[in-house]
Amino acid sequence: MVAFTKGHGTGNDFVIIADPEGDLALDVVQVATLCDRHFGIGADGLLRVVRSAALPEGDAALAENSEAEWFMDYRNADGSVAEMCGNGVRAYVHYLLRSGLATLPESGSIAIGTRAGVREVTFSEDGYRVDIGTWRLSGHDPLARVSGLSVPRPGLGIDVGNPHVVVALASDEELDGLDLARGPELAPMPEQGANVEFVVPAEPLVQDGVGRVRMRVFERGVGETLSCGTGVVATALAVRHWAGPSAPDEWRVEVPGGVLGVRMEQREDGEHVLLSGPAQLVFSGEIDLA
Amino acid sequence: MVAFTKGHGTGNDFVIIADPEGDLALDVVQVATLCDRHFGIGADGLLRVVRSAALPEGDAALAENSEAEWFMDYRNADGSVAEMCGNGVRAYVHYLLRSGLATLPESGSIAIGTRAGVREVTFSEDGYRVDIGTWRLSGHDPLARVSGLSVPRPGLGIDVGNPHVVVALASDEELDGLDLARGPELAPMPEQGANVEFVVPAEPLVQDGVGRVRMRVFERGVGETLSCGTGVVATALAVRHWAGPSAPDEWRVEVPGGVLGVRMEQREDGEHVLLSGPAQLVFSGEIDLA
Repeated sequence: MVAFTKGHGTGNDFVIIADPEGDLALDVVQVATLCDRHFGIGADGLLRVVRSAALPEGDAALAENSEAEWFMDYRNADGSVAEMCGNGVRAYVHYLLRSGLATLPESGSIAIGTRAGVREVTFSEDGYRVDIGTWRLSGHDPLARVSGLSVPRPGLGIDVGNPHVVVALASDEELDGLDLARGPELAPMPEQGANVEFVVPAEPLVQDGVGRVRMRVFERGVGETLSCGTGVVATALAVRHWAGPSAPDEWRVEVPGGVLGVRMEQREDGEHVLLSGPAQLVFSGEIDLA
Repeated sequence: MVAFTKGHGTGNDFVIIADPEGDLALDVVQVATLCDRHFGIGADGLLRVVRSAALPEGDAALAENSEAEWFMDYRNADGSVAEMCGNGVRAYVHYLLRSGLATLPESGSIAIGTRAGVREVTFSEDGYRVDIGTWRLSGHDPLARVSGLSVPRPGLGIDVGNPHVVVALASDEELDGLDLARGPELAPMPEQGANVEFVVPAEPLVQDGVGRVRMRVFERGVGETLSCGTGVVATALAVRHWAGPSAPDEWRVEVPGGVLGVRMEQREDGEHVLLSGPAQLVFSGEIDLA
């Protein structure tokens, strides 16, 4: 029997398994079975909580930052290995602190090893904040056609490690009326595909210095989801781009699964985007691994 | 904290909560939250395991059959009260026996109270068999149009307590090519709507005295599901109807979530259909009820 906890960040949900010493070899089929929503526990992905010292990928993390005691071994629901997940890392840190495996340093930040490098996760009033890294305009700005809109709309291509196309709509009614049971058609289609965010800036756009926007997302290869961390970040970047130089660097993005915060900060290697939001643990259980 | 077990029958999945003395009042919002696949445990429905003597609806069950010690308080995923579920009752009995709350009588059958009356569930080589009751041709035989088929196909209306329309396809390729992301259009649309089954009889149809058929189902108000107990029964009845008087009364129906058996038997009040299939318990856990 394996003990697990189920958690989520704005509805993006994860099976969390504590395996401090890296004793648990989970193969692709086992992870896919655990994440199956009818035959397993059900989740968007699996987070294995393991000491960096206990697995090969952890060496690079400890070399980068010797404080990165814990490594987030993140797997997609299909069992494939994944690098990072902005919603998952919050659930991961929340679990670490709640389970007592780690305590929050006085700095308020904890370093977590991931396959995308070590990430600093900071306890904040919104829950947890994590640096998603740098970003750039991709230059791929296709037209998006989707069921529920009579004419295609222009999209803005944004790369935050993975490709996004952000499409502005005119009203909440337009956003609510979209049928995202099937994916939007992009013309031209980016070579690797793209996640597509449909967004409605609030009226007024800025309140108390914070930009506000609503968003729905279609993740490539997945479908519509309740939340997508990098999609939220791309959304804030695109709306700030459209709003021009007076726009703020602090954003509040409402997704179907909740509300997330985005902040842009200048660093040595360029502008970084930080994502903040809640994390919750829902239940704990035990399951037989087949 | 409330203890629960998660189980399924051919992928139709349930949160099972033991509440023998009926102490647990679960309101609509609590059930819907427990069944939510991202914010709760996630399931197609909830089965509360309660003694018939411990709840008002149990009086009628005990009056009908004094052996019906246990009552299946079945709720849909939206929290609404439901009467019966052919897949759920197998998971329910499997849980009763595995948990030790009940032992299988020497007869091999156990009587379970439900809001649709007392059902005899019999341990069988396929898992568990349950009497779904009588059936009839509904007389509503609409044309079905669905994405993936170029022309509408004729459907046969079958009522097994709830309304079904069964549509025969020409090949496995046609069945696999259906796009059931959206519901089929029925013309004319039955007043209460209908579950729609797309079926492909095997070639040869009968092997070792057993008729064989593959099926995919679109449940009204739900969407495509991995399995639907009454849909499986309607499928076998429709294909037997089309095959004529030489067709068998024993059927094997393959659904996306597994394989189920159907048997037709004459009783005093007409012909009954019996559904048999597996049931599995997947994991156990504890959750805080909000």
